[in-house]
Amino acid sequence: MKLHTYYRSSASYRVRIALNLKGLAAEPAYVHLSKDGGQQFGAGFDAVNPQHLLPVLEDDGFVLTQSLAIIEYLDETRPGVPLLPADPRGRARVRALSQAIAADIHPINNLRVLKYLGGTLGIDEDRRNAWYRHWVSLGLEALERQLAASPETGTFCHGGAPTMADCCLVPQLFNARRFDCDLRRYPTLMAIDARCAQLAAFDAARPELQPDAD
Amino acid sequence: MKLHTYYRSSASYRVRIALNLKGLAAEPAYVHLSKDGGQQFGAGFDAVNPQHLLPVLEDDGFVLTQSLAIIEYLDETRPGVPLLPADPRGRARVRALSQAIAADIHPINNLRVLKYLGGTLGIDEDRRNAWYRHWVSLGLEALERQLAASPETGTFCHGGAPTMADCCLVPQLFNARRFDCDLRRYPTLMAIDARCAQLAAFDAARPELQPDAD
Repeated sequence: MKLHTYYRSSASYRVRIALNLKGLAAEPAYVHLSKDGGQQFGAGFDAVNPQHLLPVLEDDGFVLTQSLAIIEYLDETRPGVPLLPADPRGRARVRALSQAIAADIHPINNLRVLKYLGGTLGIDEDRRNAWYRHWVSLGLEALERQLAASPETGTFCHGGAPTMADCCLVPQLFNARRFDCDLRRYPTLMAIDARCAQLAAFDAARPELQPDAD
Repeated sequence: MKLHTYYRSSASYRVRIALNLKGLAAEPAYVHLSKDGGQQFGAGFDAVNPQHLLPVLEDDGFVLTQSLAIIEYLDETRPGVPLLPADPRGRARVRALSQAIAADIHPINNLRVLKYLGGTLGIDEDRRNAWYRHWVSLGLEALERQLAASPETGTFCHGGAPTMADCCLVPQLFNARRFDCDLRRYPTLMAIDARCAQLAAFDAARPELQPDAD
């Protein structure tokens, strides 16, 4: 397997955690999102993913985009600990928590969006940071309420073992810290984050530990 | 089952199609996204979904958010035509196509984002429309290339029967037309859209045919 990745890509970070949790290795193919005007726009990566987004998994000729699709694919095709619960309601809940991050927080704050705000729309850095914090706090506040209110929440987002939802939560909180978001308002999220940080699978996936970190 | 929905909500539209394809009925609970300052912010709906986003499915005490999680849940728990392929690679591809729309196009152009651009950032209507068309054309162009290049693409996004990916594509194209996006550049998407339009399941889910349309 080959994983097209960038150390600071939040969606790549999700997949790195998932690979580690399943005890899988993938050969990294580094795509630097700022160098050379953005290597994701180069001809090489354009042929792999015309979306110009990371991550991409290549598995024996099969080219797969989208971090959540990749995580579910790994879960369905590889042995090891499951990343989704066995029951349909549990699976649905984990998917919904994952999508609340991967669809409703992250894409609005992605690098390309911040660039459009700054470049095309001329929004200054202070207001770009306010934009970032607005969407993160909206999303995390709702997530905090959902997790705090549910008996299904355990030591992790769903029960007593990490799932795809934790693979999404930890990178989102990492990003939020980069932008100085105040995370003290989310005690449930922070407690889960702290438990994940104890696990080697999450620790080894951290952006600053990746070989392409600069 | 009860579906919290709004006729023009793109994510609700996806679930309406999925319910129709599976031959299922859900009692509608209408949430008007503009009336009363946005009924999604009212105490009633806040208790259902602190994200204040549609759709929400209630199924015998189980409250589920996120359109893609809902569609997969319906597919896993209800008989009828499958909305995802049986093989892991096919499922992964359908999920990736769905997420390319539901995560990478739609959330950036959602009502709440356009409101923030106009209100907090003072971006005028012309530039808001340009923003909309920018993200739609980026996303649809990549999707067109992915679908046109893949032997897995058939009469629909994946093979010869509609899947979750078509449930996402049709509402996204509906939205793109509302904002006068030029769709002639996407012949593969348009051909699939035209085939979907022939099916009663897609037709009956159209926003303008819903009882809450105004």
